[in-house]
Amino acid sequence: MKILIAPDSFKESLTALEVAEAIEIGFRKIFPYAQYCKIPMADGGEGTVQSLVDATQGKLIQCTVTAPLGNKIDAFWGLSGDGETAFIEMAAASGLHLVPMEARNPLKTTSFGTGELILNALKYGVKKIILGIGGSATNDAGVGMLQALGARFLNAENQSLGDGGEQLIHTAHIDLSQLDSRLAQVQIEVACDVNNPLCGETGASAVFGPQKGATVQMVQQLDKALLHFAQQVQQQLGIAIAHQAGAGAAGGMGGGLLLLPKVRLKKGVNIVLETLNFSDQVQDADVVITGEGRMDGQSAYGKTPIGVAKTAKQFGKPVIAIVGCLREDYEVVYEQGIDAVFPIIRQLDSLENTLRSGKENLISTAQNIARFYQVAMK
Amino acid sequence: MKILIAPDSFKESLTALEVAEAIEIGFRKIFPYAQYCKIPMADGGEGTVQSLVDATQGKLIQCTVTAPLGNKIDAFWGLSGDGETAFIEMAAASGLHLVPMEARNPLKTTSFGTGELILNALKYGVKKIILGIGGSATNDAGVGMLQALGARFLNAENQSLGDGGEQLIHTAHIDLSQLDSRLAQVQIEVACDVNNPLCGETGASAVFGPQKGATVQMVQQLDKALLHFAQQVQQQLGIAIAHQAGAGAAGGMGGGLLLLPKVRLKKGVNIVLETLNFSDQVQDADVVITGEGRMDGQSAYGKTPIGVAKTAKQFGKPVIAIVGCLREDYEVVYEQGIDAVFPIIRQLDSLENTLRSGKENLISTAQNIARFYQVAMK
Repeated sequence: MKILIAPDSFKESLTALEVAEAIEIGFRKIFPYAQYCKIPMADGGEGTVQSLVDATQGKLIQCTVTAPLGNKIDAFWGLSGDGETAFIEMAAASGLHLVPMEARNPLKTTSFGTGELILNALKYGVKKIILGIGGSATNDAGVGMLQALGARFLNAENQSLGDGGEQLIHTAHIDLSQLDSRLAQVQIEVACDVNNPLCGETGASAVFGPQKGATVQMVQQLDKALLHFAQQVQQQLGIAIAHQAGAGAAGGMGGGLLLLPKVRLKKGVNIVLETLNFSDQVQDADVVITGEGRMDGQSAYGKTPIGVAKTAKQFGKPVIAIVGCLREDYEVVYEQGIDAVFPIIRQLDSLENTLRSGKENLISTAQNIARFYQVAMK
Repeated sequence: MKILIAPDSFKESLTALEVAEAIEIGFRKIFPYAQYCKIPMADGGEGTVQSLVDATQGKLIQCTVTAPLGNKIDAFWGLSGDGETAFIEMAAASGLHLVPMEARNPLKTTSFGTGELILNALKYGVKKIILGIGGSATNDAGVGMLQALGARFLNAENQSLGDGGEQLIHTAHIDLSQLDSRLAQVQIEVACDVNNPLCGETGASAVFGPQKGATVQMVQQLDKALLHFAQQVQQQLGIAIAHQAGAGAAGGMGGGLLLLPKVRLKKGVNIVLETLNFSDQVQDADVVITGEGRMDGQSAYGKTPIGVAKTAKQFGKPVIAIVGCLREDYEVVYEQGIDAVFPIIRQLDSLENTLRSGKENLISTAQNIARFYQVAMK
């Protein structure tokens, strides 16, 4: 019997690898001689780098980069075990959590640090970069990131644009000639789970600006700036980014990335599934166990367990989800390939104690699922 | 497929019947054409009368009886659907909850009201009485109950003993000649889950007296009184109750009952299983679902799910427990025939909200178990 364990992390409690290990412990009590395949999963958001490093026996690389407001910080990215792929989370360099609440101002914040992470990865000679772009503090259409990689954005006086989305209104000349030449050889897969365009009512500034500190007036200013930038890109480079689905992700980072030679925007969970050769692993599995910290009606929209379930169902495998908590309208996941869901909470307790009991409760739940599986199969 | 659903109540939240109904709703979503057999269970404690009435399509009978301190109260007992069996909980007439905290005094409390409930049942012509004796306020060796049924206990001056355990020290003559004659024809099965003797260090007064309000001095006084009573019973009637296992239950009620002609002390859950012909129902079941409000290390000692599981395992059936919460050391239930346990809590919330969500969470858990069962059987 082969049991494939492919959970997401339980946020604030356990990494995806820790979740997978706990589930294996529970199952092994009942099926000690089964074959276990653990694939720590992620959806491109927080924890993706750790999961991919864990899954590929890779390592984390530390480096110093520029934070959204220009100060230097320690950040990290992940190198796969075979050294061929870099795993990068934009949030590690340009995340909202790096900016104190009172200093949040998307007119000023730059994605430069994310470009530095990419540059650092290029130095390691990777052939592929997986880039998660969630949780950013920026609204600069990725211009800071592009500048770090050698692109030049000049105003009418041929001066380089400064940092932050407000500067984009001055874009007059775009020069990609100094872009790092290694980018032509490196495939960048961008984990992008939103379809928002760069500009307009459903664009980057209007939808994501406010959570980054933008006032109504700032949203209008930024939207106008990004639209001007997109028009310049269209005119000078012939690339249409203003209405491209996903271009509005991460303050327009989705759009800015399209200026690079080999970039694809894809669903985060699908990138992770492909990177980890999930299909190959699921083919001969008898049962697939997935999970996440919180499952609810939103889980049906492309989060990790659904990605796992959809692939598993291509091969007709049973899929069980083990979850930290189970909220309203979760039943929609049944239609997406999840056969059954079991929450791990065993008793009412404080959040702190419950998070601390996460591993123990996971083991217990997995053990009971395994026990039931054993009698049900008879 | 036949699914047998035999849970205990979830205390403070749902009756056993309500639990069984919720489980059926969840299962029916997946197996709409299965045969469902619901047997609301109990272990002789609180809720037993309601469960047995529900299971036999019987009814509750109201009657006025004497409370532990002599005042009159409305109490109830249950009559089985076929009119042949009475279901009585001692707590309904003589329960600790009927005595205000500040008035609790086991020197004074009488079990007379429980005798009145039995008397009332006899008037209905029942052939059998199931009597649960948990939760009593009394420490009178059941003398009040016996008095209500016609027995006479006299002191050296041939005066009837007054109410309460403290009076037993004056027992000089015991006269059972006026005992209700119908008792000779009626089998009384007493649900008794403790093995404590009437007297001594592990006796009724020492072990259960304190929780009924006895001080250390009262415990000594009561133990002495009960020992004197037991000696009188031995001498005058030839019945040995002082060291009989179970005689110490319910303030010596277990011992007092042994003065009646047709009484058997048994494990509560076994009485309920027999009364409901559980063995007959389980024989052709495919799976047995049981449950209780709280499962822990103590659950292994004869509580409802274990009784259900042990009987089910005589026929080799899979047994799944669905529980309100799952506490420390619960794993011991595996050795007692429970194959797997699933708690129903889906998220952290207030106790009030969690209890209020009990039915919904039960349905959800049952549905997921059924869904898993369906894929596991394939």
